Amino acid sequence: MNDSKALSTQPYKGARDFYPEDMRFQKYMFSKVRMVCERFGYEEYDAPILEPTELYLRKGNQEIIDEQTYTFTDRGDRSVTIRTEMTPTVSRMVAGRRQELPYPARWYSIPNLLRYERPQKGRLREFWQLNADIFGVAGIEADVEIITLADQIFRELGAQSDMYEIKLNSRKFVNFLLGEFFGLDEVQQTSIIRLIDRKNKMDPMSFVTQLDALCSPSEREAGLVEQITGVLSVRTIAELPDAVQAAESLVPVRQTLEQLHAAGIHNAAFDITLMRGFDYYTDVVFEVFDTDPNNNRSMCGGGRYDGLVGAFGVEPIPTVGYAMGDAVLAEFLKGHELVPELAPESDVYIVLAGDVLAAAQKPIADLRGMGLNIVVDFSGRKVGDQFKSADKRGMTYVLVVGEKELNDGQFTLKNLKSGAEEKHGLERIVSIVKDRRHD
Amino acid sequence: MNDSKALSTQPYKGARDFYPEDMRFQKYMFSKVRMVCERFGYEEYDAPILEPTELYLRKGNQEIIDEQTYTFTDRGDRSVTIRTEMTPTVSRMVAGRRQELPYPARWYSIPNLLRYERPQKGRLREFWQLNADIFGVAGIEADVEIITLADQIFRELGAQSDMYEIKLNSRKFVNFLLGEFFGLDEVQQTSIIRLIDRKNKMDPMSFVTQLDALCSPSEREAGLVEQITGVLSVRTIAELPDAVQAAESLVPVRQTLEQLHAAGIHNAAFDITLMRGFDYYTDVVFEVFDTDPNNNRSMCGGGRYDGLVGAFGVEPIPTVGYAMGDAVLAEFLKGHELVPELAPESDVYIVLAGDVLAAAQKPIADLRGMGLNIVVDFSGRKVGDQFKSADKRGMTYVLVVGEKELNDGQFTLKNLKSGAEEKHGLERIVSIVKDRRHD
Repeated sequence: MNDSKALSTQPYKGARDFYPEDMRFQKYMFSKVRMVCERFGYEEYDAPILEPTELYLRKGNQEIIDEQTYTFTDRGDRSVTIRTEMTPTVSRMVAGRRQELPYPARWYSIPNLLRYERPQKGRLREFWQLNADIFGVAGIEADVEIITLADQIFRELGAQSDMYEIKLNSRKFVNFLLGEFFGLDEVQQTSIIRLIDRKNKMDPMSFVTQLDALCSPSEREAGLVEQITGVLSVRTIAELPDAVQAAESLVPVRQTLEQLHAAGIHNAAFDITLMRGFDYYTDVVFEVFDTDPNNNRSMCGGGRYDGLVGAFGVEPIPTVGYAMGDAVLAEFLKGHELVPELAPESDVYIVLAGDVLAAAQKPIADLRGMGLNIVVDFSGRKVGDQFKSADKRGMTYVLVVGEKELNDGQFTLKNLKSGAEEKHGLERIVSIVKDRRHD
Repeated sequence: MNDSKALSTQPYKGARDFYPEDMRFQKYMFSKVRMVCERFGYEEYDAPILEPTELYLRKGNQEIIDEQTYTFTDRGDRSVTIRTEMTPTVSRMVAGRRQELPYPARWYSIPNLLRYERPQKGRLREFWQLNADIFGVAGIEADVEIITLADQIFRELGAQSDMYEIKLNSRKFVNFLLGEFFGLDEVQQTSIIRLIDRKNKMDPMSFVTQLDALCSPSEREAGLVEQITGVLSVRTIAELPDAVQAAESLVPVRQTLEQLHAAGIHNAAFDITLMRGFDYYTDVVFEVFDTDPNNNRSMCGGGRYDGLVGAFGVEPIPTVGYAMGDAVLAEFLKGHELVPELAPESDVYIVLAGDVLAAAQKPIADLRGMGLNIVVDFSGRKVGDQFKSADKRGMTYVLVVGEKELNDGQFTLKNLKSGAEEKHGLERIVSIVKDRRHD
């Protein structure tokens, strides 16, 4: 214990302090997210922030497992990991009640997660993430609904359809393309999938060089590198070679796209380079990108992962889910100027004129009882200084309470934004303030 | 990677999975907590779950620091600790904006915290906790407000005043009593405070034996053990020896109690044995206890800690705060039968009769657009099985959608609780369901 050196006031690197004004924005985003999830019948759940490390050792994102987990041994000698994603956890929970749950089960959660990454804009070590999943539906109705849900959240937050695009692909189709069609072995497939996953962040030449290195001399000779890069350059399903277009595994992607377009979601399109980094996906996958060229990053992604629940020793359950992080969503909303002015939750700031706190308790309790959120300034400072604090807190209304007001039951309500002043009894004041709340 | 052995579906020991019905209860509790905090003008904040370990090495609860932290080294070689309490964190945040914040600053948060304890009823390794603090007020108005806030939360959750009691004491007074009045040295004081803190969990004889061991032979000879146990047995301030009653440090406790009683909080009383385990308190402290003799535990506690912000190299700020955990609050509500029936957030369960999903998308979107939370069963099962799932999910309303309904725009709304059925257009259905929501 060393009291001489002052402690730092900085938060842990890559994590954030949410001061009240930051929290207001966070609450705004997630209240919209919650509203849309509940409109679609999704029920909120939550789970521990610690999981046994082995939960992440099966299928997942190998880079995260190897380099980004916070893993340690607890005082009871168990290896535990702070959750890096929610999918293994929700699969564990569903497996635990496999028999009892009503299906289709629609669940959502907004957990905080930790990954040891290099902090940068939109990417942090601690972040919050919406997770929405639908369990028990094998057909593409579930894929369509999950993507529609993602789209609706963007709309509810004020986004226009040209501000973001939804890209679809299929894990099964990629396996067909690289395995059956191009005849690559499993080791090559895994490496090439990882390479394509990074394609948009690489210069084209180094992509070709690395792809070249993954092919055998005879494959190179046969022109495989050019064939693969050629297929990867298509922008639509119609541009694919006929034998590829005929693949059975393309049907769900095509139908999902058709249904999304029929529902008016025209900013959804096929993207053959979309891989999704997680190993557990089994069919259609999707991501949503910001169309701003200065911020063209993936904002959320997901897909079908039919096998994960089965890792817990029960029959597998068909599942589609997706996740969306808070930091990247916040950058999107700021970038497109979609952040509304957020007022404090407090309705009225009480300025006390003189030593009247004891006598003021009754009207203060009455105002709260009538449903107003009331801040009392009992600092004992001058009235002018109390007004300054109210302004600093972003308040609209100040109510002055002094001896005279307490005697005649008429109080001066001052609107700090407009400068207007009016004098009324408490009930009238409550109704004025409540009316203004819904502006 | 070993895929042969199934993973466990159990959550980490001492932590909880919140399935949707558990989450509903958690959300109910904390929506009441949030509402009351905002009525009193408290603003929500949040902070990282990881803190540098040194944040907890100053003042706190030594037992927690030594035995209950989750501490480890991160990949960047920093010693980090998962937060065990919020007070050091909030002090850090306030210190970081010492100059800019408007005072009085009222803040609240509902973080999850981890302590490595032996799990038992009402005590878990991971728990959520309300933290409410008021910064910048040296007078007892702040103490009175914080205790009133705690009381209001219990009332808002339906508690009667005989179900809980609020006990007050003063850290300064305890120091006076043991130091100045009984003449004990600092080492003795610290040990005796820890002993008194455990008094209610010990049998009276072993308390006396341990107290005896902490006194010197001459103190024992002078009858100090009997004098201390005598003073500790008083139930009111009035029963204290005159010289103790006259202590300056008793004034804030007495005045706080008077003001609470004047505000109608009659279940608040002085308790000389109340110590609070944390080292940072400086004056009035309080705890709220369940009066149920089978569950007579402390549910929340707090007090004044004027020194903590100053540990960050800035001028100290007078502060009063308190905390209340979810697990013990849940036990209280269950024990006193204060848990209301909690309906799902979903309003209507759509049962599809036949292959009509595509045609049903429009009325489903319309219902959502009019503000209803809609679950669609696109399992393709028989209508009867879909009804069973709706019932299992706890739904009140089911809407049957088939070809006929889609053609004539009239839909059968069935109330699963009452068995009643009625047929209407969509708008009328929305208004029936919304009316029922506010029952």
